[in-house]
Amino acid sequence: MNRDAKFAVLGGGSWATAIAKMLCENVDKIYWYMRNKTAIEHIRKEDHNPNYLSSVEFNNDQLLLTNNINEAVENADYLIFVIPSAFLKTELEELTASLENKVIFSAIKGIVPETSLIVGEHFHKIYNIPFENIGVITGPCHAEEVALERLSYLTIACANEVHADFLAEHLSSHYINCKTSEDVVGTEYAAMLKNIYAIAAGIAHGLGYGDNFQSVLMSNAIREMKRFIKKTYKMKRNINDSAYLGDLLVTGYSVFSRNRMFGNMIGKGYTVKSAQMEMSMVAEGYYATKSAYNINIAKNKKKAKTPIINAVYQILYEQKNPKEIFAKLSDKLN
Amino acid sequence: MNRDAKFAVLGGGSWATAIAKMLCENVDKIYWYMRNKTAIEHIRKEDHNPNYLSSVEFNNDQLLLTNNINEAVENADYLIFVIPSAFLKTELEELTASLENKVIFSAIKGIVPETSLIVGEHFHKIYNIPFENIGVITGPCHAEEVALERLSYLTIACANEVHADFLAEHLSSHYINCKTSEDVVGTEYAAMLKNIYAIAAGIAHGLGYGDNFQSVLMSNAIREMKRFIKKTYKMKRNINDSAYLGDLLVTGYSVFSRNRMFGNMIGKGYTVKSAQMEMSMVAEGYYATKSAYNINIAKNKKKAKTPIINAVYQILYEQKNPKEIFAKLSDKLN
Repeated sequence: MNRDAKFAVLGGGSWATAIAKMLCENVDKIYWYMRNKTAIEHIRKEDHNPNYLSSVEFNNDQLLLTNNINEAVENADYLIFVIPSAFLKTELEELTASLENKVIFSAIKGIVPETSLIVGEHFHKIYNIPFENIGVITGPCHAEEVALERLSYLTIACANEVHADFLAEHLSSHYINCKTSEDVVGTEYAAMLKNIYAIAAGIAHGLGYGDNFQSVLMSNAIREMKRFIKKTYKMKRNINDSAYLGDLLVTGYSVFSRNRMFGNMIGKGYTVKSAQMEMSMVAEGYYATKSAYNINIAKNKKKAKTPIINAVYQILYEQKNPKEIFAKLSDKLN
Repeated sequence: MNRDAKFAVLGGGSWATAIAKMLCENVDKIYWYMRNKTAIEHIRKEDHNPNYLSSVEFNNDQLLLTNNINEAVENADYLIFVIPSAFLKTELEELTASLENKVIFSAIKGIVPETSLIVGEHFHKIYNIPFENIGVITGPCHAEEVALERLSYLTIACANEVHADFLAEHLSSHYINCKTSEDVVGTEYAAMLKNIYAIAAGIAHGLGYGDNFQSVLMSNAIREMKRFIKKTYKMKRNINDSAYLGDLLVTGYSVFSRNRMFGNMIGKGYTVKSAQMEMSMVAEGYYATKSAYNINIAKNKKKAKTPIINAVYQILYEQKNPKEIFAKLSDKLN
């Protein structure tokens, strides 16, 4: 590994833009792939992404922009995927460049719907990437605050410590503190599960529950997350570390979280479809709920106790009445 | 123990009013002591406390109001103290009635400044009350949401399970869920420590740190709380239970918390004195900071690592610059 290693950011959304900004603090040039050609032209002319974090000014000398995913993948050693999980499989189908010897980091929060796999597992199983070349970048981190250069903390997880350290070093700056971890699976599941709990927080809010209840819900959510992850991948971890609890809190308490907003509409009486149409998007936690529910049944002989995930599942996928389900759920919380 | 046991609520603030309301859902009559004679007269005439939670309507037939602490103490078996810790010692000096055979529950969040003892220890050491007759009522619970009958959860802690169960039964209702615990010391310390962390959250906000940082701060705070309580009183407890983590979150994330507000002013550049004058009160966490700092030095041969408490202490009691102290603190968080 050397200082000349090349990075590619794959994705054009706000979190991708934030990561591109972080890297540009430390490296001369990065590859940056995004589908949207108009956005690329705009960045070239105006030095900022027109659609996301448009206050962030880039220096175009640092950006090797391309809308050809193969160009970025071929030329870079470290690939940072920041494509929404719902589109990942389709985007990857355009790949002709080899992923061999590439180090792949996922900054995607969610599960690949078609395979029901977390992103790291998807790369491992579908593309035969060895686990030591797969890592995860997790928050707690709203991209908007990176744009404002407000101090934020990231956790870089990889089974291969060298890769984790290397990426951590290249993402750190006066407003980014990185820590490393070996818990790729656990941090990735945490990033996915927190979106379900954010939906739960939104539903509760929409139903009229107050702050007292929300704090109990979050306190139960972190215990549930611990049980779920432990059953899925047992290793020594402190669930109160930033990558787990911090990430849960920054999402669960954020009024800007799309998952929380989605839940709030469900709690207020919208159907799943009408809420999705109103938001003109599908919140990641929607897919995560189904996947987590199924994973918990399939993977674990003895299921983890997950009353919150189950309640959200029943509301979103079995059209159960949110008020009744949450009344029952509230008796199970403590 | 029998159903005719009499309860006394001692205190006239919002939390005392909330607890009086909870009890009145279950018992025919309660004693209710408060200093303020005008408030008593107002409740008698108008059925509500004029100063706190005035939307809560009482049935005067259920209230044995008195401004004589001895009348309430003499006649009741269960004494629920809800007097601010800063005034507790003075109020108790008026006691001539015996506390023998009384069961004493503290719903006070804080430390008795004169003795630097948590309330349970204060009653034990100064009044020789056996620990089995001492308990604690903790949240997470804003009194305002009890007034609105929004579902809230309490933890009732007592070494004697019978007392805890009995009180839990008499506080529970369609909007109050109670759980019991044996961890009197830990829950009481948690209730005290959370106010310090709320001050820290306020300082961070006042200094311009964002939500990403707050979530990391809270994630570090719960780990710090765990270390502190473990050094102070070691027993098996799950720090993510509502009485610890939930209570931390409901305060740390509340924009209405007086401790957070106080911290916010300090972060914005107010001196301690001017912030206290502006708020025309002293936030409980102010005393708690000093006590926790000293307890950690005095009680524990090997001190718990408490970077957040230390930072708040340096800012409040050593007039250190909040910006510099938080810059240093942020390097210690992860």
